[in-house]
Amino acid sequence: MEDIIYGKNAVIEALENNRTINKVLIMNSVHNDTKIDRIKELAHNKNIIFRFVAKEEFVKYKEYNHQGVLAFASPIEYANLEDFLSKPHKNSSVVFLDGIEDVHNLGASVRACVCAGVEAIIIPSRRSVQVNSVVEKTSAGAINRISIIKVNSPVNALQKLKENDWWVIATDASAKDNYYDIDYTDMNFVLVLGAEHAGVSKSIMNLSDFKIKIPMATDFNSLNVSNALSIIIFETVRQKNKKFVF
Amino acid sequence: MEDIIYGKNAVIEALENNRTINKVLIMNSVHNDTKIDRIKELAHNKNIIFRFVAKEEFVKYKEYNHQGVLAFASPIEYANLEDFLSKPHKNSSVVFLDGIEDVHNLGASVRACVCAGVEAIIIPSRRSVQVNSVVEKTSAGAINRISIIKVNSPVNALQKLKENDWWVIATDASAKDNYYDIDYTDMNFVLVLGAEHAGVSKSIMNLSDFKIKIPMATDFNSLNVSNALSIIIFETVRQKNKKFVF
Repeated sequence: MEDIIYGKNAVIEALENNRTINKVLIMNSVHNDTKIDRIKELAHNKNIIFRFVAKEEFVKYKEYNHQGVLAFASPIEYANLEDFLSKPHKNSSVVFLDGIEDVHNLGASVRACVCAGVEAIIIPSRRSVQVNSVVEKTSAGAINRISIIKVNSPVNALQKLKENDWWVIATDASAKDNYYDIDYTDMNFVLVLGAEHAGVSKSIMNLSDFKIKIPMATDFNSLNVSNALSIIIFETVRQKNKKFVF
Repeated sequence: MEDIIYGKNAVIEALENNRTINKVLIMNSVHNDTKIDRIKELAHNKNIIFRFVAKEEFVKYKEYNHQGVLAFASPIEYANLEDFLSKPHKNSSVVFLDGIEDVHNLGASVRACVCAGVEAIIIPSRRSVQVNSVVEKTSAGAINRISIIKVNSPVNALQKLKENDWWVIATDASAKDNYYDIDYTDMNFVLVLGAEHAGVSKSIMNLSDFKIKIPMATDFNSLNVSNALSIIIFETVRQKNKKFVF
C-alpha cells in the first residue's frame, strides 16, 4: 500500500530526501507559489510523474489538509538495529519512544529529534502508533531525515545497544537525578521516553544506566511526551554546544 | 454558551480548580474506578449536580473522547492584564503566544507553562485559536491552573508590561543570542513565541529587550511551538533551580 503525503512542505521534504515517490498530484486551481515551483522542479529532476488535476479529483482526499498537493509514496522503509549498530558512532544519540499512542505526539517528537541531531528513533512494533500520513505531515517532513527502527522486543533492543557500549537513560517522575545533572557529552546514549500514561515499563527501568526526571516548578506534573523529549534532548545539545563550540 | 469538558482527568482538574461547573454527566455503564469516585465526591462536596445517564444520551457527544464523563461549565474566565500587573511579582514569568493556530499546540503549551510555574499566558483576541473543549482536554486540565489573558493589541500589552518593569524576550531563528545565554533568574519576563509559520511579528521584535534562538544541531529548523516553548521555559526553571536550590 502507498503512503499519502499531503501538504506543500511535507511533499517538498519527501522529494528532497529521496523518499520513493510514485506520483505527485497538484490541483490545477492551486496558487502557483515558490513552493509549488519547487515541487515541480524536484519532481522533474527526479523523473517523478506529476499531474495537474481538477479540484474534483481531490474530493476523495478531503480528509487530508493537502493544500492542493499530494504525493503517493512507497511506505517508509524502517531501518534495522543491527545495521545501525554496525556503523561507527561517536557522542551520538538515539531516542526510544516506548508506546506512544498519539500521532501528533509522534510527529512532533520526530521533528524535535531531527532538529537536535538525533541519529535514530526506535519504536516498538506493537503498542505504538506507526508512521502514517498524519505523522508524516505533523513531522513537517522530518520523518525522511532520520532512521526509524522498529523492534519486536524493546528489552532485547536496549540490551543489544548496551552490549555495543550505548548507555540507556530512562525518564521517570520518581527518579532522583534531574535531567540536567547528567553529562551527555562523552557517550553514545539512548534516551527512553514512556507512553503518555503508563510511563517507561519496569523491565526497561531495570536495565537503565541512568534514571532521570524533569523537576517541575509546581505540583502539576503532566508534560506531553514530545515536550518532555524536547526539554531533555535540547539540554544534551546545550551541553555539547557549551563544550565543543566555545 | 457552556463549555463541554470531557474525559475523566479533565473533569477532575476542572472540579478541583473551582471551575464553575453547571452539571456533570456520567454514563451509567461506565466502569466505576477511583477517578469516577473522585468525580462523584468532588461534585457532591461542591453541590454540583451529577447524573447517571444511559449510553444513548451520550451519542450526541460522540465527537468527544469522553470516557463516559462530561461536565458542562461556564466559559473560561479570561483574566485582565491590568489586574494581573497590579499584583506584586518577583522573578515571575509570563508566556505570550502570538497567533497559535493549532488547538493541540495551545493545549500542550498550557500544560508546559503550568509545569514550569509560569504565572499567566497571554493570547491575542484575534488571529489565534481560543480556549475550547479540545484545548481544555489537550491541556489535561492545566487550563484551570493558570490565568489566561486575552488582549486586543499585542504591542500595547507588551508595552504595558515593559512600563511595569517586565522584560520582553522574543524568539527568532535569526537571533544572535542562544536561549541558554540569558540569565532568567533575576527579572520578571514575558517570553514571546510566534505563530507556527509566520514567527513573531516585526512590531513585537522591535520592542523586545532580548532576542533569542534555539540553536539547531542540523539544518532542519522546524520545532513545533509547544516544543520550542518547553525547551526555553524549562531552561529558565533549570537556571532557577541551580541558583536557588543548590
